[in-house]
Amino acid sequence: MSTDTHVPHPSTDVEMPAVAGDAATEERTRERISDLGQSLRTATGGRYGEVRDLARATLPAEAMVRDPDMSLDEAREWTRRTLATMVEHGAAGSGFPLEQGGLNDVGRSCVDFELTAHGDLSVTVKSGVHFGLFGGAVTSLGTAWHHENVLPPTLSLEQIGCYAMTEYGHGSDVSSLETTLTYDAGSDELVVHSPTPSSTKAYIGAAAADARMAAVYGQLIVDGKGHGVHVALVPVRDEDGNPMPGVTLGDHGLKGGLAGVDNGTITFDQVRVPRRMLLNRYGGISDEGRYESDIEGDNKRFFTMLGTLVRGRICVAAGAAVSSRKSLSIATRYALRRRQFDAPGHEGEVTLLDYLAHQRKLLPAIATCYAHTFALNEVFERLQELHEAPEKDQVAQRELETRAAGLKAVITRFANDTNQVAREACGGAGYMAENGLTVLRQDADVFATFEGDNTVLLQLVAKGLLSNYKEMFGDLDMRGMVQFAARSIGDQFIEVTAARPFVSRLIATAARRSEDETLLERGWHLSMFADREKHVLETVANRLRKNAKDSDSFRAFNEAQDHVLLAARTHVDRVILEAFVAGIEECQDEEARTVLERLCTLYALSSIEADSGWFQEHNRMSAARSKAVTAQINRLCAELRPDALAIVEGMGVPEAWLNSAMLREPERWTPGAGQAQADTGQVQPSAVATAE
Amino acid sequence: MSTDTHVPHPSTDVEMPAVAGDAATEERTRERISDLGQSLRTATGGRYGEVRDLARATLPAEAMVRDPDMSLDEAREWTRRTLATMVEHGAAGSGFPLEQGGLNDVGRSCVDFELTAHGDLSVTVKSGVHFGLFGGAVTSLGTAWHHENVLPPTLSLEQIGCYAMTEYGHGSDVSSLETTLTYDAGSDELVVHSPTPSSTKAYIGAAAADARMAAVYGQLIVDGKGHGVHVALVPVRDEDGNPMPGVTLGDHGLKGGLAGVDNGTITFDQVRVPRRMLLNRYGGISDEGRYESDIEGDNKRFFTMLGTLVRGRICVAAGAAVSSRKSLSIATRYALRRRQFDAPGHEGEVTLLDYLAHQRKLLPAIATCYAHTFALNEVFERLQELHEAPEKDQVAQRELETRAAGLKAVITRFANDTNQVAREACGGAGYMAENGLTVLRQDADVFATFEGDNTVLLQLVAKGLLSNYKEMFGDLDMRGMVQFAARSIGDQFIEVTAARPFVSRLIATAARRSEDETLLERGWHLSMFADREKHVLETVANRLRKNAKDSDSFRAFNEAQDHVLLAARTHVDRVILEAFVAGIEECQDEEARTVLERLCTLYALSSIEADSGWFQEHNRMSAARSKAVTAQINRLCAELRPDALAIVEGMGVPEAWLNSAMLREPERWTPGAGQAQADTGQVQPSAVATAE
Repeated sequence: MSTDTHVPHPSTDVEMPAVAGDAATEERTRERISDLGQSLRTATGGRYGEVRDLARATLPAEAMVRDPDMSLDEAREWTRRTLATMVEHGAAGSGFPLEQGGLNDVGRSCVDFELTAHGDLSVTVKSGVHFGLFGGAVTSLGTAWHHENVLPPTLSLEQIGCYAMTEYGHGSDVSSLETTLTYDAGSDELVVHSPTPSSTKAYIGAAAADARMAAVYGQLIVDGKGHGVHVALVPVRDEDGNPMPGVTLGDHGLKGGLAGVDNGTITFDQVRVPRRMLLNRYGGISDEGRYESDIEGDNKRFFTMLGTLVRGRICVAAGAAVSSRKSLSIATRYALRRRQFDAPGHEGEVTLLDYLAHQRKLLPAIATCYAHTFALNEVFERLQELHEAPEKDQVAQRELETRAAGLKAVITRFANDTNQVAREACGGAGYMAENGLTVLRQDADVFATFEGDNTVLLQLVAKGLLSNYKEMFGDLDMRGMVQFAARSIGDQFIEVTAARPFVSRLIATAARRSEDETLLERGWHLSMFADREKHVLETVANRLRKNAKDSDSFRAFNEAQDHVLLAARTHVDRVILEAFVAGIEECQDEEARTVLERLCTLYALSSIEADSGWFQEHNRMSAARSKAVTAQINRLCAELRPDALAIVEGMGVPEAWLNSAMLREPERWTPGAGQAQADTGQVQPSAVATAE
Repeated sequence: MSTDTHVPHPSTDVEMPAVAGDAATEERTRERISDLGQSLRTATGGRYGEVRDLARATLPAEAMVRDPDMSLDEAREWTRRTLATMVEHGAAGSGFPLEQGGLNDVGRSCVDFELTAHGDLSVTVKSGVHFGLFGGAVTSLGTAWHHENVLPPTLSLEQIGCYAMTEYGHGSDVSSLETTLTYDAGSDELVVHSPTPSSTKAYIGAAAADARMAAVYGQLIVDGKGHGVHVALVPVRDEDGNPMPGVTLGDHGLKGGLAGVDNGTITFDQVRVPRRMLLNRYGGISDEGRYESDIEGDNKRFFTMLGTLVRGRICVAAGAAVSSRKSLSIATRYALRRRQFDAPGHEGEVTLLDYLAHQRKLLPAIATCYAHTFALNEVFERLQELHEAPEKDQVAQRELETRAAGLKAVITRFANDTNQVAREACGGAGYMAENGLTVLRQDADVFATFEGDNTVLLQLVAKGLLSNYKEMFGDLDMRGMVQFAARSIGDQFIEVTAARPFVSRLIATAARRSEDETLLERGWHLSMFADREKHVLETVANRLRKNAKDSDSFRAFNEAQDHVLLAARTHVDRVILEAFVAGIEECQDEEARTVLERLCTLYALSSIEADSGWFQEHNRMSAARSKAVTAQINRLCAELRPDALAIVEGMGVPEAWLNSAMLREPERWTPGAGQAQADTGQVQPSAVATAE
């Protein structure tokens, strides 16, 4: 039974098909949401909207929620079983080739990841490591033999794979990995070896218990000559689960979260595999024992191979975005019921969400979640477009890689902040695992450093911008960064920052108005974001160009590092706002559109407020305008308050998937909840004035 | 053996007395720190510096660190045993009366809490609930019979107590608790009862397993008349650990952290206890069965009783502060060794801490930790001064309560942010429990909502300021807040914001200089903080005064809630900066003083930078000055970099207490660590320019 018995909008019952379970379960998984909530889901669905709707209607709630009070062993066993259930429901393998039973849809594979992320993140990460990283490496870096022999047992979960890239000694600097893959012409084998304590493969998902096969990154050495980092498939366990000879496997045990993922270490002592185990799409060894590759230059080849990381980064961003939507769903649903103090004259009416400070904690964050949803929809679609394209457009590929890196950094940072805000917004109840927030926050935490450190990723974004997407992705040598800047010219950025026709049009309209009139104008918001990006990028280019005279390239780069990071962040912010605006353009439902416009304004003004120091420093905003922005944010919070429940529903997480005790038993947390009282009972929006 | 074999300053060996354990243990707990590190510890020691030094030299590392990979039951058992060890080492009970074996030193009791917080926080919280909250309530709210009969078995751990205040339905609004304590004249007993599902006592530490006696907060009803919230002692378990008749005990199981604390629920079904079980210092029941109290008015009496919460809030702030010092100690020690990329021309030299972005993550946070240490030292001392004073100074008491509430809110918020920053600054390693960051972060999280929700506490601070400390603490009715403002006059704030002679002197000196000269002047920093507070406070008072005409006091208050919170926060920031400046005045060591001055400037400028939007909006800072602040922060980071290790040592956490695998085995995380290399090898500070 839904606990929201009083919804402000006409309701739509989404009947879920019966899943294994009793009547109570069916009752619990039948979702009843408002028409506005449904319209918002439709508006945010994008190309894969129907895939999402289907999942919400068919994935059993039991598979989505784990009892947090499990031992590591129990959690791992539960995760194994649940992953199998998910696979039965078709939530994996979409990115595999048609020939091997996939859908050849890499955009959809990201949506699969996103959907599993609505449940327990251990299952999501376990799935992502096996299908996305391991399966993705075999698909992208391997050739026919690998596809035919390795993908089928991967898709059936018969043979679990792991992705052995990171070493204790090298995380971000992948090109310096120490593991060696040495070709022995005599036996026609590769010898896989860990030469130092720091070359041990570390934090590898599935290494501690389940993996049978590893995709191992290491320096390929043929005839005494190094050819840079390549990947070889190496069996790490036999059919009985025992380590293969020469392979030492360790268990990381407890982590910050993700109890169900068996992360571990792998050390190789002169382990031999046949030559064909090298994933040789971009570089391999001929029958004559010679190294051969279509790509000249170890670096270029290596970064082409790393380009396959793009999907992993998009997935991580999507998973983090779901965690924010979930935590805000829990906190907002709670705030709609919870009363903290009785307000004189409003006995029993004022809930937590009526407080301005509480609105300020939750509503701008929800607006940001909507913004991220639209930005992610764009990259899902773009990923598949480029995948389908007959000709590879290298600049478009670099741009997508840049965007994936930037969204990953910004969205995971936001998730870690937001999940903590949501937990605190629920008081002591937020700290109890049964209410669904703490495990979620602990699990999502990993995304901050998983698939690339956020600081490093933002630097890659800056490099992409400074080189106008002409340089290979992944290479973060400081000398390079400084040199690109030295070559770049200011005008190129204009093109970058006004890529979409509607943006130019809206900006031009706003430019003809006076400051007094533009606070709510989308064109003004867009121009503030675009102008901030352009100015920061131009000035950092100038600065690096000046620094390039310094013979010490580390110093030349490091002196401007904070500026470089700001350039990347302001770029990502602009991309996100434009995606939000483009998404609203597609929305047909008038009521939903009105709400989306308000959310978009709230997102834009919150970003401008957060950077009000910068905007004033650079004469982009007067002191009076800065104060007006703050007052307008408060006003928007009051305007959105009556639709809060529908807006939460629109984020797309069915209440049953939230698994929150305090939402199931409101009578405990809401004195007098037995009496008839509307969940959305709200106080008249207050007059809004400026903090002076 | 210390892993820091190359320290930049002459070293002092602090020999620890042998504790039960082998030679390896002794070796590990012998701390070797630099002279500068020792001087910084001395400078930050305050009145209780020697207590802290002794603890560092005597508390066994074994008692400080828990294997994170324990089940809930194992963690609870370990926590019980470790608490007993801590008590043997004298780390509890300092606040108890001399007659019952305490030291009658409530300031020191906060330092005891702080010291245990260097270890596992489950032990700290378990100790805090038993000795601080339960023992503190008996000491402060009870009379001779309670002291004589309840405190001795409390001090000996023979009878574990719990503090049953919060209910599911009421956390922040304690005066509305639903539990009833009804006097039955016929039997001369109190009847303790939970009338609704929402009146169940919730999140109560020690309720799930260990507590035998509860201090129960409830509405006292005598002869049919309510007298507001009082506290009664109620046995909840018999000697065999079974629940007493009428008492239902629940177990919250897994939480966001604090695995060793057995939080649970308590429900009372007409439970009877003798009349003398009422803690009757401020209000009780006479032999004739009549209610009697020296304090007129239920509200005033209740808030006098709540004044005893002040120590709990100071302890929570101190515990959170320690968590930040620990997480930053781990992250900075790691950053001093870890290399991410090789920098051209600096092969093997550049560590993570040489990057500007990394310095920016860690060094301003460390400066803030130093600021918080000085501010906490002041409240420890003030708490004991007021406790020792023969006459109660009500205004001084209110001021201390205000300060405790404010520091609790600001320091716990900072801790949650900082612990996450530290974890992310260690990359994937930061997510592994063995490296010491995740458990620490999860445990410290509770402080955000424990002993008062931070938003509510900041509102209490604002109320204290608006009423000039004349109103009782704890009462957060909105009508009251608006009315105080209506009565207040602007001039009073001048007194509040210039309470210390040296502050006025320094501000006057800076005022005679031009803007170009004052960036590094302490007087300019102090005046910026004081002026920000004064302006925000005056304008919020004006605004509330204007709003007071509104008949709807909720709306009148709520409309300005963000402004109210800003007033509180800017007040706390000013108090903290002044404590830092006062602390430096006391420092005799010249080298330590130089470092402290830099840290203080870094703290002040970071706060100004974070609020640069506000300062520019209000014409307190020009655009040029705002840019100069950013550049100066970068310059200070470079200046502090060479002393980073000593500055970390100065925060006072022995490396052995950090229990971090990656600090014990640097060869894994640092390729080439086997070669001779200085930990503090650093690149020439770079020229610093302004981000344009």
